[in-house]
Amino acid sequence: MTTYIEIELVKLKKKLLELGAKVEDSLRQSVLALAGRDRKLAETIIEQETTIDTLEVEFEEECLKVLALHQPVARDLRFIVSALKINNDLERIGDLAANIAERAVFLSKRDVIDSPYDVLGMADHARNMVRKSLDAFANLDEETAREVCTIDEKIDRLNREAYPKVTRAMQENPEHLEQLINYISISRYLERVADHSTNIAEDVLALLGGEIVRHRLEEMPEPDRDTSDSEGA
Amino acid sequence: MTTYIEIELVKLKKKLLELGAKVEDSLRQSVLALAGRDRKLAETIIEQETTIDTLEVEFEEECLKVLALHQPVARDLRFIVSALKINNDLERIGDLAANIAERAVFLSKRDVIDSPYDVLGMADHARNMVRKSLDAFANLDEETAREVCTIDEKIDRLNREAYPKVTRAMQENPEHLEQLINYISISRYLERVADHSTNIAEDVLALLGGEIVRHRLEEMPEPDRDTSDSEGA
Repeated sequence: MTTYIEIELVKLKKKLLELGAKVEDSLRQSVLALAGRDRKLAETIIEQETTIDTLEVEFEEECLKVLALHQPVARDLRFIVSALKINNDLERIGDLAANIAERAVFLSKRDVIDSPYDVLGMADHARNMVRKSLDAFANLDEETAREVCTIDEKIDRLNREAYPKVTRAMQENPEHLEQLINYISISRYLERVADHSTNIAEDVLALLGGEIVRHRLEEMPEPDRDTSDSEGA
Repeated sequence: MTTYIEIELVKLKKKLLELGAKVEDSLRQSVLALAGRDRKLAETIIEQETTIDTLEVEFEEECLKVLALHQPVARDLRFIVSALKINNDLERIGDLAANIAERAVFLSKRDVIDSPYDVLGMADHARNMVRKSLDAFANLDEETAREVCTIDEKIDRLNREAYPKVTRAMQENPEHLEQLINYISISRYLERVADHSTNIAEDVLALLGGEIVRHRLEEMPEPDRDTSDSEGA
């Protein structure tokens, strides 16, 4: 027999995955706009941000209603608290997609320059992480959730490697400083998209294991982080 | 008569404010380390990040317990959900303090250069916002919460203005590119500290008004954000 609370939880999950699909789409399109110097598309994504914000607020209200009406405990309660956190992470990924779109608008009006690092490859990894973290949540799939955490390490590395590359390009082409600063921003935005996806994956792991795994997966701070990177955070 | 749930909520609030005080202190010290080129202090703050992470996880578990055991409704429920979100924002401010400390370590090993923008003034505003947002939460004080949102606009402006200043400094002193990139990062970190403080203030306003005000306070996206700033996000 399916209980009322189970029906509510299925509804919440469906709604959250719909928001996730919208956010993933915004991110995909912001990268397309960047790659194609498509200012119109970029502006559309910037406008869509408010829709995502509204959906986030609505979802939170629905979670509060389910909490108040059904007073779930144990696993159901943990599911809703995780859903609230995932909701928040998705909204931030939506913000970051809009940030990338803003950089795309800026860059579309300047001379074309090559990105000093593989920005599209990095964006692919980031988008892949968003999709996989949502898949992990949809299927409560531990393996996929762990995969997300692994890709995160790769993106952290790519972000660290981007800085000396951009610095070198700045030294060689000081006339492109403005554009190059924007490429630094984009690298950081993608790295933050990856972080939020990792948060989602860690919430899935917590749901599966019943305990909070986040932070434990993170590497401990090294005694001296300043080795090869001029900017690593 | 004081009910059990009231006692629990007072305990949660106290605990969250303790975490807030720790985070505020980390931020204060990371700026001191930056200003004083104090590598040892900066490294201490980087190490403290894990303590803050642990406190965040513990606090979340306690909220879950109170939710499960006392099944609060209405205002009490909303209080706990807000507390969970504030907990998350505080942990991220702690991360950002550690990020600033990492930049302080890097800069302490390079030639001294002047920051192209008033980094200490901007840091003062950011720290002020953290403290005020915590005060607003402690006293459920609407006026202070609104003040935080106003200071946020100022920090957004300072961050936007920092970019052209740093770009100009890069053009004039290309030999300081590496240090200057770090100053861009610090400006962005401070701007994100301000954003998280604003989230906290908006949660306080939501608690007071019983409705979610966040996003409504934000300005609508402008048709073209690329006017004077080379990097505005």
